[in-house]
Amino acid sequence: MAAVSLSVSNVKPLGDRVFVKVSASEEMTAGGILLPDSAKEKPQVGEITAVGPGKLNDDGSRQKPDISVGDKVLYSKYAGTDIKLGSDEYVLLSEKDILAIVS
Amino acid sequence: MAAVSLSVSNVKPLGDRVFVKVSASEEMTAGGILLPDSAKEKPQVGEITAVGPGKLNDDGSRQKPDISVGDKVLYSKYAGTDIKLGSDEYVLLSEKDILAIVS
Amino acid sequence: MAAVSLSVSNVKPLGDRVFVKVSASEEMTAGGILLPDSAKEKPQVGEITAVGPGKLNDDGSRQKPDISVGDKVLYSKYAGTDIKLGSDEYVLLSEKDILAIVS
Amino acid sequence: MAAVSLSVSNVKPLGDRVFVKVSASEEMTAGGILLPDSAKEKPQVGEITAVGPGKLNDDGSRQKPDISVGDKVLYSKYAGTDIKLGSDEYVLLSEKDILAIVS
Amino acid sequence: MAAVSLSVSNVKPLGDRVFVKVSASEEMTAGGILLPDSAKEKPQVGEITAVGPGKLNDDGSRQKPDISVGDKVLYSKYAGTDIKLGSDEYVLLSEKDILAIVS
Amino acid sequence: MAAVSLSVSNVKPLGDRVFVKVSASEEMTAGGILLPDSAKEKPQVGEITAVGPGKLNDDGSRQKPDISVGDKVLYSKYAGTDIKLGSDEYVLLSEKDILAIVS
Amino acid sequence: MAAVSLSVSNVKPLGDRVFVKVSASEEMTAGGILLPDSAKEKPQVGEITAVGPGKLNDDGSRQKPDISVGDKVLYSKYAGTDIKLGSDEYVLLSEKDILAIVS
Repeated sequence: MAAVSLSVSNVKPLGDRVFVKVSASEEMTAGGILLPDSAKEKPQVGEITAVGPGKLNDDGSRQKPDISVGDKVLYSKYAGTDIKLGSDEYVLLSEKDILAIVS
Repeated sequence: MAAVSLSVSNVKPLGDRVFVKVSASEEMTAGGILLPDSAKEKPQVGEITAVGPGKLNDDGSRQKPDISVGDKVLYSKYAGTDIKLGSDEYVLLSEKDILAIVS
Repeated sequence: MAAVSLSVSNVKPLGDRVFVKVSASEEMTAGGILLPDSAKEKPQVGEITAVGPGKLNDDGSRQKPDISVGDKVLYSKYAGTDIKLGSDEYVLLSEKDILAIVS
Repeated sequence: MAAVSLSVSNVKPLGDRVFVKVSASEEMTAGGILLPDSAKEKPQVGEITAVGPGKLNDDGSRQKPDISVGDKVLYSKYAGTDIKLGSDEYVLLSEKDILAIVS
Repeated sequence: MAAVSLSVSNVKPLGDRVFVKVSASEEMTAGGILLPDSAKEKPQVGEITAVGPGKLNDDGSRQKPDISVGDKVLYSKYAGTDIKLGSDEYVLLSEKDILAIVS
Repeated sequence: MAAVSLSVSNVKPLGDRVFVKVSASEEMTAGGILLPDSAKEKPQVGEITAVGPGKLNDDGSRQKPDISVGDKVLYSKYAGTDIKLGSDEYVLLSEKDILAIVS
Repeated sequence: MAAVSLSVSNVKPLGDRVFVKVSASEEMTAGGILLPDSAKEKPQVGEITAVGPGKLNDDGSRQKPDISVGDKVLYSKYAGTDIKLGSDEYVLLSEKDILAIVS
């Protein structure tokens, strides 16, 4: 079996899942918003890198996702599966764990 | 990737979520209502800052939220995700965790 | 932002929630019913102060509540959210946590 | 606010709830059935004192209860809410927690 | 109030419940099957003594039980409510906790 | 009451349950597959001995099981109820706890 | 009873289950992606070896799986049942525990 190469471009989420690049906590304050120390340890902001086809409905149709590639989002810190590619952190989330778009 | 700037005006809740500014416990007593010490440590009052499009129904329609931007609300203290922007505290809640409007 | 003033008259429960004034344990025995010491520490009696519009059904209609303002009720001690206004205790309950009317 | 007087006759269960007078463990053996010591500490027998209107169905109708006032019943020991009126013990149960009628 | 007499013949299970006489572990080996010591401590065999009318369906009909009075059954050891009548042990089970008939 | 004799041939599973003879871990490696020591302690292979009529659907019909008597199966190690008959181990499983057929 | 021989080719998953060969953590970095030490201890990549017929719908039809034999996938590390065949590790997963295809 050939080796599996993980890179950002070849991760295709299934169902209602989305692939999110975790924003470093330094970046979150670049716009002048100062986060207190305790908050810096809880990065909950990221950018959507890939979106699955959507949740499968009972009748076999798909629920079109409300978010798109490139959206900056807030998500539940304890949700999803963390994945590290090189020095970057990613998280695979269910769409329902995304709380808000921060456009 | 450009930095993500979090500010009150650019948080757009998804689904049935609402963005609420947490009221400081001092303010809650301004109208003459005195809260005992133990209660002061449990701020459960806030003002709605942004409202999502509403919960997605099984048929693809949306359940219109019962609350609006500007409403003062009581909410479950342990619900939602806390977010700090500068010196202000916010919370992202599901509409179902809002208990009452205090108009 | 103006301060939020909590008072009995301006709490408007949402959905299937009701606002209940907790009866002091002394009052519960006024009719001649003597409660043993251990029971006195578990006040589960109150008077309905405000009633929400009712639980939202799946078809968008509301389930009319079975209780009304002024009803004396028994409720589950560990249910709901406690709220103190001045020296009075209140609780915000879901209607399903109200066990019986004690008329 | 007037005091709330709790007495057997004025407890009106809501929904699928029933009001049950707990039988003293002495009484349970009166018919000649001897309960060992360990069992005596788990009274799970009672008599129905009041019955609610029944569980609300999704279509707004009520599910007529299978038990009636006066029925002697076995119930799950850890179910419901205990209430003491004078020297008598009562329990407010959901009908589903009643296991059997012992007629 | 008259005393409640518990005896085998007057226990009438409600809903999907069945009343089962627990078989002593000695009896289980009478047919020549030897149970090792550790298993003897987990009696999970019994005989059906009474059967309820069956689980209530959503449309108000009853789901006829698959077992009958007199059936020997295997059941989940930790399910149900134990009841002791004289020197005999009984258990009130939901039909779903009965695993198999051992005819 | 006569004694209950447990033997393989008289166990009739109810509903979606199946009766499975646990394969000894020695047997699993007979085809040349070597299991490491740690895996030997987790026998999760067995042979179907009896199959229930299938899960009851909401409309009263039965869901025909996907497995048959004689199938070798892999099942979740922590599922079901263990039963020992003589020196043989059996397990009563729900069909959903069977992971795969190893034909 | 004949011995059960486990080999890759004779494992036939039931329902919505899939049989996945776990990729060694060395292989995952072959394409130039360097995984930090802590991540190496969490192999969550594998290749689909066999696919079940799909989840059974309520109407008796099957939900066709979204993945196929040969797909490289990311899956939840703590999901499923581990199986070791010779020196290779496999996992039996429900399709819903597969997060993404990494083609």
